[in-house]
Amino acid sequence: MREELRRLGELPAITSAILKTYTEQAGINHIGVVPLPSKAEAIRLLDLLFELLYPGYFGEQGLDESNVSYIVGHKVNELYDLLTEQIYRAIKHECRRLGSVCTHCKVRSEDVAVDFLRSLPALRELLAEGVQAAYDGDPAAKSTGEVIFSYPATVAITTYRLARQLLGLGVPLLPRILSEHAHSATGIDIHPGAEIGRRFFIDHGTGVVIGETTEIGDDCKLYQGVTLGAMSFPKDACGQLVRGQKRHPTLEDRVTVYAGATILGGDTVIGHDSVIGGNVWLTESVPPHSKVVIESPKLVYQNAQRMP
Amino acid sequence: MREELRRLGELPAITSAILKTYTEQAGINHIGVVPLPSKAEAIRLLDLLFELLYPGYFGEQGLDESNVSYIVGHKVNELYDLLTEQIYRAIKHECRRLGSVCTHCKVRSEDVAVDFLRSLPALRELLAEGVQAAYDGDPAAKSTGEVIFSYPATVAITTYRLARQLLGLGVPLLPRILSEHAHSATGIDIHPGAEIGRRFFIDHGTGVVIGETTEIGDDCKLYQGVTLGAMSFPKDACGQLVRGQKRHPTLEDRVTVYAGATILGGDTVIGHDSVIGGNVWLTESVPPHSKVVIESPKLVYQNAQRMP
Amino acid sequence: MREELRRLGELPAITSAILKTYTEQAGINHIGVVPLPSKAEAIRLLDLLFELLYPGYFGEQGLDESNVSYIVGHKVNELYDLLTEQIYRAIKHECRRLGSVCTHCKVRSEDVAVDFLRSLPALRELLAEGVQAAYDGDPAAKSTGEVIFSYPATVAITTYRLARQLLGLGVPLLPRILSEHAHSATGIDIHPGAEIGRRFFIDHGTGVVIGETTEIGDDCKLYQGVTLGAMSFPKDACGQLVRGQKRHPTLEDRVTVYAGATILGGDTVIGHDSVIGGNVWLTESVPPHSKVVIESPKLVYQNAQRMP
Repeated sequence: MREELRRLGELPAITSAILKTYTEQAGINHIGVVPLPSKAEAIRLLDLLFELLYPGYFGEQGLDESNVSYIVGHKVNELYDLLTEQIYRAIKHECRRLGSVCTHCKVRSEDVAVDFLRSLPALRELLAEGVQAAYDGDPAAKSTGEVIFSYPATVAITTYRLARQLLGLGVPLLPRILSEHAHSATGIDIHPGAEIGRRFFIDHGTGVVIGETTEIGDDCKLYQGVTLGAMSFPKDACGQLVRGQKRHPTLEDRVTVYAGATILGGDTVIGHDSVIGGNVWLTESVPPHSKVVIESPKLVYQNAQRMP
Repeated sequence: MREELRRLGELPAITSAILKTYTEQAGINHIGVVPLPSKAEAIRLLDLLFELLYPGYFGEQGLDESNVSYIVGHKVNELYDLLTEQIYRAIKHECRRLGSVCTHCKVRSEDVAVDFLRSLPALRELLAEGVQAAYDGDPAAKSTGEVIFSYPATVAITTYRLARQLLGLGVPLLPRILSEHAHSATGIDIHPGAEIGRRFFIDHGTGVVIGETTEIGDDCKLYQGVTLGAMSFPKDACGQLVRGQKRHPTLEDRVTVYAGATILGGDTVIGHDSVIGGNVWLTESVPPHSKVVIESPKLVYQNAQRMP
Repeated sequence: MREELRRLGELPAITSAILKTYTEQAGINHIGVVPLPSKAEAIRLLDLLFELLYPGYFGEQGLDESNVSYIVGHKVNELYDLLTEQIYRAIKHECRRLGSVCTHCKVRSEDVAVDFLRSLPALRELLAEGVQAAYDGDPAAKSTGEVIFSYPATVAITTYRLARQLLGLGVPLLPRILSEHAHSATGIDIHPGAEIGRRFFIDHGTGVVIGETTEIGDDCKLYQGVTLGAMSFPKDACGQLVRGQKRHPTLEDRVTVYAGATILGGDTVIGHDSVIGGNVWLTESVPPHSKVVIESPKLVYQNAQRMP
């Protein structure tokens, strides 16, 4: 009786009330013929890419000389289909948002997918260098295999490089979906708009933020909790934020930034071969070969003296 | 032979030893007729709620005018069943823990589930405002779609608002299971007991902690690594912690707190329209329209001067 | 026509280019007869272990007196099979990496798996103490059930203890895969090499880093963002990092470290019953019963005075 009331009265009324908001509050729903990109498919895409980039480590196992070319060929085809579909949805959505008509969306999606796949062999070289750099730079690393299997930097930086590539090819939405998936998995937040050089390494990594217009040279290294951020957001004459302007710092080659340091501002340049110490808060440039450390705030010791 | 020894001797002995601890060390197991809430089902619950709240963005795709009412009706029914079951388990467990007898647990679960579902349309309005606030406040955001798809704040704040609602309806256990799922996904730890106003936004977010008795007004904004925490935990006459007391700060309307700032204490009130700078450590109240910044600890530059 | 070109021309060319890098850039792939450990299987392993350690809370539900011994026996067998296979792969890979021949890898894997399973009953005792310590130390905790279900510390510390056990039994690769899975889920990064005493608790936890050679006594407590880290990495005569040396601090019994504090260096010992305040940066030892707090950097208040 009660139960019948629910099923026939209350629940349908709730359904109607929710449906009503889909019309009245249309900003956060998408109901229409062309679906949006799918987060689940984007993650599947990433999984497939990791399988291709680090074969034997991620995904399908048991690759050997006899089956590897068959398996890779198969995965490249699968990737191509997934990519074109998701890129198409992203481009189409953007087109409509900007009020354009999609005349070339489909063909462009296919072209972009092929261009993206073509970039994978060169990317493998970058990634191999990165794994070696992590091993060389961390005394806790027991083997490069351990770095690939278990370092959050592997997930975060690989995903960043893939998302960067897609963004460079003009794909909307997808790059951020990929990079935020890596952010969720690792606590490392790298905006795909950042430009990052070779042999980049992040140790531990939780809390790292690398903003959209950051530039990082070769052989740089960050520790957990480092922010490369913006200082203030200029607005235009209408009071709207100005988007796309350089707001985040530049790190030249061979810069190391220790845990918890914060470097802010689009004009801030950290000269090459510099070391920025833990917890430093920096909003201005420093020349090459600088070492900047915090003058530790005095500690107060109670009920005890320092040990001799 | 060896293998037989394992299967017939060693493994059964291990099983017995583990089973023995289930009786002797009963604090961390639940063996009985009424099961506990299921974490997996709670997460399924959350997924369904995101589908209803942001249709077309999360979960099932291809919603259009012709099928949307059917799909939503179906999901509301599914949600109701899931909710009543999980709420029932949580209430029943709490009842037994407190030594009561469950006379109304089942009926109460159903009522709570309906009340909860009834709150969804109004929640959609809150969420739409929140998405817009994120877009307006972040120059890196390219569209509100990007905010919904890829901003950790969307996951963390939406989940918080759902968990808050359940907690307000008196449901034990489930709210924290939901909020910790979001904490795991985003690095943003919002206790469902906190009270948070409209158009709240958290940028990047990793490391944010918002304690149980925090109050936050409308139009507030936090950056990564901000703690709104407790200072000390008073104990009662028996040496037990006093629970439920106001221990966390209050932020009035239009307060912005930059990365890494820490604000502590139940008596600490940040007046409206205030800005708390990065890394500030604050344990006392500030009046409205304050701007509080850290007097940067002196930096030590070695082997280099500051750039002109 | 275009599509045919893709399928017959461009995609096969991309496949060939990728395959070519598998030979030329061999550092980050594993193509051979003995597969590497599987991350997915390692996670399955962890899920099974959580089911055995916290029965009724994680995984299969509906355990009661009538079925519990059957279910546990079944899971112990399943665990044994999974463990031996994954341990075998890890040991075999390490053997080959070091240029040895695997004469005892298989038998050793089985022995290690049994030894590991034998450690579970005693571990349950440790874990129950830990859950109680969390409840006793956090006024926001409503029940020990809430601690088990929803505290990131439960996931991070339980996984750490399992990974520590495997590492102690000489298993390569797997311990770090497990601990990084927990790091990903919780933002708490505990290296399995650390030694941690009983009733350890971490509140909130995002951003915590506990390095490989850290030692922590009984009844210690950390808050979010605490780093127990290394200061510098000595290199050997060939310029290679020295691995395995004590680089991280020691915390004696009953030490509490508040949010954001950083304690560095292998010679740094925090004496028992000490309290290290939030944001403290400490690179030297302190005697027992110390309380070390930061002398807060002066705050600058603009457009406002402090409240009376």
